[in-house]
Amino acid sequence: MSDSTARPVDYSRVFTQAIDRLHAEGRYRVFIDILRNKGMFPNARCFAGHNGPMPITVWCSNDYLAMGQHPKVIAAMEEALHDVGAGSGGTRNIGGNTHYHVDLENELADLHGKEGALLFTSGYVSNEATLATLGKILPGCIIFSDELNHASMIAGIRNSGCDKRVFRHNDVAHLEQLLAAEDPNAPKLIAFESVYSMEGDIAPLAAICDLADKYNALTYLDEVHAVGMYGPRGGGISERDGVADRITIIEGTLGKAFGVMGGYIAADQTIIDVIRSYAPGFIFTTSLSPVLVAGVLASVRHLKASTAERDGQQASARMLKAMLAEVGLPVLPGDTHIVPLMVGDPVKAKRISDILLAEYGVYVQPINYPTVPRGTERLRFTPGPAHDEAMMRDLTKALVDIWNRLELELRKAA
Amino acid sequence: MSDSTARPVDYSRVFTQAIDRLHAEGRYRVFIDILRNKGMFPNARCFAGHNGPMPITVWCSNDYLAMGQHPKVIAAMEEALHDVGAGSGGTRNIGGNTHYHVDLENELADLHGKEGALLFTSGYVSNEATLATLGKILPGCIIFSDELNHASMIAGIRNSGCDKRVFRHNDVAHLEQLLAAEDPNAPKLIAFESVYSMEGDIAPLAAICDLADKYNALTYLDEVHAVGMYGPRGGGISERDGVADRITIIEGTLGKAFGVMGGYIAADQTIIDVIRSYAPGFIFTTSLSPVLVAGVLASVRHLKASTAERDGQQASARMLKAMLAEVGLPVLPGDTHIVPLMVGDPVKAKRISDILLAEYGVYVQPINYPTVPRGTERLRFTPGPAHDEAMMRDLTKALVDIWNRLELELRKAA
Repeated sequence: MSDSTARPVDYSRVFTQAIDRLHAEGRYRVFIDILRNKGMFPNARCFAGHNGPMPITVWCSNDYLAMGQHPKVIAAMEEALHDVGAGSGGTRNIGGNTHYHVDLENELADLHGKEGALLFTSGYVSNEATLATLGKILPGCIIFSDELNHASMIAGIRNSGCDKRVFRHNDVAHLEQLLAAEDPNAPKLIAFESVYSMEGDIAPLAAICDLADKYNALTYLDEVHAVGMYGPRGGGISERDGVADRITIIEGTLGKAFGVMGGYIAADQTIIDVIRSYAPGFIFTTSLSPVLVAGVLASVRHLKASTAERDGQQASARMLKAMLAEVGLPVLPGDTHIVPLMVGDPVKAKRISDILLAEYGVYVQPINYPTVPRGTERLRFTPGPAHDEAMMRDLTKALVDIWNRLELELRKAA
Repeated sequence: MSDSTARPVDYSRVFTQAIDRLHAEGRYRVFIDILRNKGMFPNARCFAGHNGPMPITVWCSNDYLAMGQHPKVIAAMEEALHDVGAGSGGTRNIGGNTHYHVDLENELADLHGKEGALLFTSGYVSNEATLATLGKILPGCIIFSDELNHASMIAGIRNSGCDKRVFRHNDVAHLEQLLAAEDPNAPKLIAFESVYSMEGDIAPLAAICDLADKYNALTYLDEVHAVGMYGPRGGGISERDGVADRITIIEGTLGKAFGVMGGYIAADQTIIDVIRSYAPGFIFTTSLSPVLVAGVLASVRHLKASTAERDGQQASARMLKAMLAEVGLPVLPGDTHIVPLMVGDPVKAKRISDILLAEYGVYVQPINYPTVPRGTERLRFTPGPAHDEAMMRDLTKALVDIWNRLELELRKAA
């Protein structure tokens, strides 16, 4: 059948080699099989071992405020489930546009003080679809992107076909240098995040907006690690800093602080209408289940009014950072709820994580490339309002034990 | 501030012009705001008018078998909601890998007789992420794509960076001609669908597999409009035709016949591992809510054992096609559950749909470009097991009335 001179491709070998490369680099990922216990977060069960479910404490969840367990959220989802059923049954255009979707978009537009909002099936898709579509609608647009932007923004920028200029992380002077070097008449878009999820630092929003004004650039701000958690109503860093009206497009997630699933953008109605009408990743996909949308509605409304969750989270993060620093563990400083502990090696990061789970019932994943640059591998803790002081003492002690055992350096404060 | 010789971009004008183009072409989309009544599908409520919700019959849902309303699905989701809460709280690698996800992947692998399966947040993402990643793992790969492939496959192929050859719809001779023209040593992938959702026709799976064998090509089959509905256990056309083991990767959705939300692929374990480890659209996104996953598990298990829904759907589709053809309405022939009624003009398709909703309480969306090629605009009915004969008579009568009113042609059978 095949040409006698041909050496047919051995697909199987190509695929196996791709996996072997990951093992060789020590960054092959094993997913830990867990079940959370509703109402008892951060307690959960782990199915990784062989002796039935083992109780664990979750330290790496992005359900930052435990809203995924909030009675109002659960009740709203249960009601929707019984009222309209499991799925939406179609794309937004063909049968999948429910009243829940319309209400939630209005709620999110209000949260950010924008004319409109648009739901996507995930934050990843929000970023990819919006940036790719914007770039196509604005021929010749140049996109200025922070070097630590999330993979979904990078994908959207690449798929936009636009020229890209990468500025050093949170470096406004470098951004200005790049903006000034381009044709003043070319369309420009600055794409950045507010809270960077792996560093736990915050972008200088007002200064970036000043540059956008000066160079007539649009701004695209990813607030997925900030919405629900910053600002008086949970509108993110742009609300906290009073600059939401200066950001062209604010993007957020429904799957982290809001505790459910999905993503969105908020912007002027015309921009919402353009993305709604042109983005394949929005048009050609079944809309979010109304059950999820109902849960998010309850969550957003609750966090607009309640600050207890935000205050509790900040207090927990401060306490944990202080405890880790006190014993000399290499915690990255910062003013956010994210607590990165630097390891700098993929194999060691995985080893620490494995020991924590197996011996201490502590669940925190190693963060390796491609999630962070090589050489900056780390553990990333996300204490929430429900992580108490006793849990933090246990965690700190476990980490010190392991650090000693693996002969890693502790930098004791003087 | 701005350069005095510069003409700054007027972003607002660019965006408004993009929307104006859609209005000018008659394909600006208005989403109909509806709520389904659980347990009473296809009955629903519409919020489009000004006098409160109006009762309607849904004729365009992709919840083909009404599994989104099935008591087993609802019960499973309610149980998960109370057991583990609303969202997964993270990516599959970081806190979002629950026991439900593991179980469902095993169930889907079994459904297709494959070693493994992998969940995505949507069918769109499954296609985009898998095809883009495959293309990158196989340098020099040439992708052979049916001309009517879904937008998500087209996006994945484009983002793979591979060379693409488009073969005429379901045309095996043309596909062979294209395969034969390429270097026999080059990696090759044939990407196609089983049931084409807008035409309602079926690809010649076995013949395409023969070509794949002959030319040493991988096969990628989108079964989103077939899983749950064809094959003795709902494994799709590949199960019905007994060729599942000859397809390299089978892709499906959890948001159509299974009634919930999400997407997946099933394949050999090595391929699953490659996509799991390399696809940004899988890695960098919050995993499906365990509530959804629990509902899908119940749905897949039910449809593996029960054929009543499939039989009812096929009977409904045959009956509706016969009724429409009898009065001379331009229904597209075909052996599937999809009933396309050709209009050939975007403005008329929208007008018919508007009248059906406003005057007859019939909800069916116009299908215009870019969902179908220009000049082939249509209405697309998806009768399911719960659409009864009386509903079909009412629908047929309404369509004949409108066809006469708009002076469209009825081709009466002799």
